[in-house]
Amino acid sequence: MISVILLGAGNVASHLYKAFSASDSVEIKQWYNRSYGAIKSFKNNTEVIDDLSQLKDADIYILAVSDDAVSSLSDTLPFENRFIVHTSGTMSMYDLEKKNKRGVFYPLQSFSKHADIDFKKVPFCIETEDKLKLQLLKDLATALGSEFYKITTEQRKTLHVSAVFINNFSNQMYRIAHEISDADNIAFDLLKPLILETANKVQDMSPYMAQTGPAKRNDKKTLKKHLKLIQDEEHQEIYKLMTKSIQKTHGIKYRFDIKRKKNNER
Amino acid sequence: MISVILLGAGNVASHLYKAFSASDSVEIKQWYNRSYGAIKSFKNNTEVIDDLSQLKDADIYILAVSDDAVSSLSDTLPFENRFIVHTSGTMSMYDLEKKNKRGVFYPLQSFSKHADIDFKKVPFCIETEDKLKLQLLKDLATALGSEFYKITTEQRKTLHVSAVFINNFSNQMYRIAHEISDADNIAFDLLKPLILETANKVQDMSPYMAQTGPAKRNDKKTLKKHLKLIQDEEHQEIYKLMTKSIQKTHGIKYRFDIKRKKNNER
Repeated sequence: MISVILLGAGNVASHLYKAFSASDSVEIKQWYNRSYGAIKSFKNNTEVIDDLSQLKDADIYILAVSDDAVSSLSDTLPFENRFIVHTSGTMSMYDLEKKNKRGVFYPLQSFSKHADIDFKKVPFCIETEDKLKLQLLKDLATALGSEFYKITTEQRKTLHVSAVFINNFSNQMYRIAHEISDADNIAFDLLKPLILETANKVQDMSPYMAQTGPAKRNDKKTLKKHLKLIQDEEHQEIYKLMTKSIQKTHGIKYRFDIKRKKNNER
Repeated sequence: MISVILLGAGNVASHLYKAFSASDSVEIKQWYNRSYGAIKSFKNNTEVIDDLSQLKDADIYILAVSDDAVSSLSDTLPFENRFIVHTSGTMSMYDLEKKNKRGVFYPLQSFSKHADIDFKKVPFCIETEDKLKLQLLKDLATALGSEFYKITTEQRKTLHVSAVFINNFSNQMYRIAHEISDADNIAFDLLKPLILETANKVQDMSPYMAQTGPAKRNDKKTLKKHLKLIQDEEHQEIYKLMTKSIQKTHGIKYRFDIKRKKNNER
C-alpha cells in the first residue's frame, strides 16, 4: 500500500483524488488545500486540512498545484528528507525546494473539470532525483492502471510543447472548421467521424504516412479554390501556413503567392 | 436491391467496391476502369470492363474518379437520362454533363489505400438534381450502414475546406509534435493517448468549450518559454499564429511581440 498526501484542489488534484480513492493499492492519508472550502465536502472520506503544520508522514507528497505555486509551496513544507513530487509539465524538478527528496509525476493528458478521466489512457512522465524513489512512482502509476515513461526535466518541457500542438492547436483546427461550417448551416456532427478517424489513423501509422489532401498532393487548383472560399483573413493565413508546412514536410516546392495589401513579405 | 455500376479504380472506388460487395441490398452490375489492369483481378466476382460502350443498365452510375476526370468522363457516357453521381468533395453537381440525371454521393472521410474503412463511420453528403432520385441515394447510404446528410454543392465545398482543417491540418500538428519530440528522443507513443482524447472530447462538447492550455489561459510565461524552446522558425510561426487564433476565439487581447529579422510586420 502506497500512502499519499495530496496538496492542491485543481483539475489534476481532483482527478487524482478520485483515481487514488478507487485504487486498492493507494491510501490517501490527507488532502491539503490552502482554502478549506474547495475540499471540505470530502471530509467524511479523507482527512482534509488547510494547515501545513498538520501534515502527517506519507510515502509521497503530491503537489498538484498551479505552476506558479510549486516552488513556494515546496518552500513552506515543514519537514525535510521526505519524497515530494509535482505534477507540472513545464516546471523543473529542481523548482522544488531541495530540503526534500524531489520528483515529478506528470500526467500527459488534457484534464477538464467536468469530463471523467480514464487513467488507463493517461501516461505518466516520471522523474526522481533519488534513483531509489523511481520504483515508488512506477508503482503509483501502475496502481492507477497507467503507463509510465522515465522522462527528464528537459524532455518533459519538450513534451509539453508537443502537447500544445497536439491538443490545443488541433482543437483550434476543429474550432475553425466549426466556424466555417456553421456559417454555411452545416451540422458539425457531420465532421465528427473525420475528427476521430484522423486521430485513430496515427495510432498505427506515423503522421507523415497518414497525411493526405490537396497540400500533400500539391493540387494547386483546389488550394486556390479553398483560399477563395475562406472568408476570414486569419483563417486564410492559417490555411497558407499549414499548407506550406505540409509541403515542406513532404518535399514539395510549390508556394502560394502570399501577397498582403500593405506590404510585401518576400 | 439497388443496381450500381462503378466507374474508376482509385481509393474511393476500391473502398466502395468492397463495401457494396458486402451489402445484401446492393448489386454491382459492372466495374469500369479505363485501364483494365487495375480491376482485372476482380473479374471472377464482378463483370469488369474498360470499354464504355459495354455499359449496361443500372439504377446508379457512380463516377468515383479524380476531380479532373469527372466532367470528361460524364461527357463520354454513351447514354442519356440515366442517374449518374460523382463522389467528389470539390466538384459541383453541375460539372456532370446534363444529358443524364445528376447527383452527388460524397463520403466525408479520409481514405487510405491500405487502411480498411468502416462505412458506419462515414457520413455521406448527398445531393440530386431530380428530387425523386434523392431516396435512391439515401437507400444506398443506408445499405452501407452510413449516415447521410442532404448537402448542397455550395455547402459541400465549404465542408471540404473544413475537412482540410480537421484532417490535414490536425495531422500536420501531430507531425510537428512528432518532429519536436523525436529530436529529444521522446517516444511518440507517449503522445498518442492525448491525440485520441483531444478528438474524443469534441464528440460531446464543442471545440470552443473543450479548449485548454496556455493560449486559452493567457499564461504568458509558458507561452514565452515554449517559443524559446521551439527551434524551427516555421514551427514558431505556427505556434504564434495558432495562439493568436485561440486567443481571438476566446476574447483575449494579449499578443506576442511578433518581430521578424528582415522587416517589421506591424
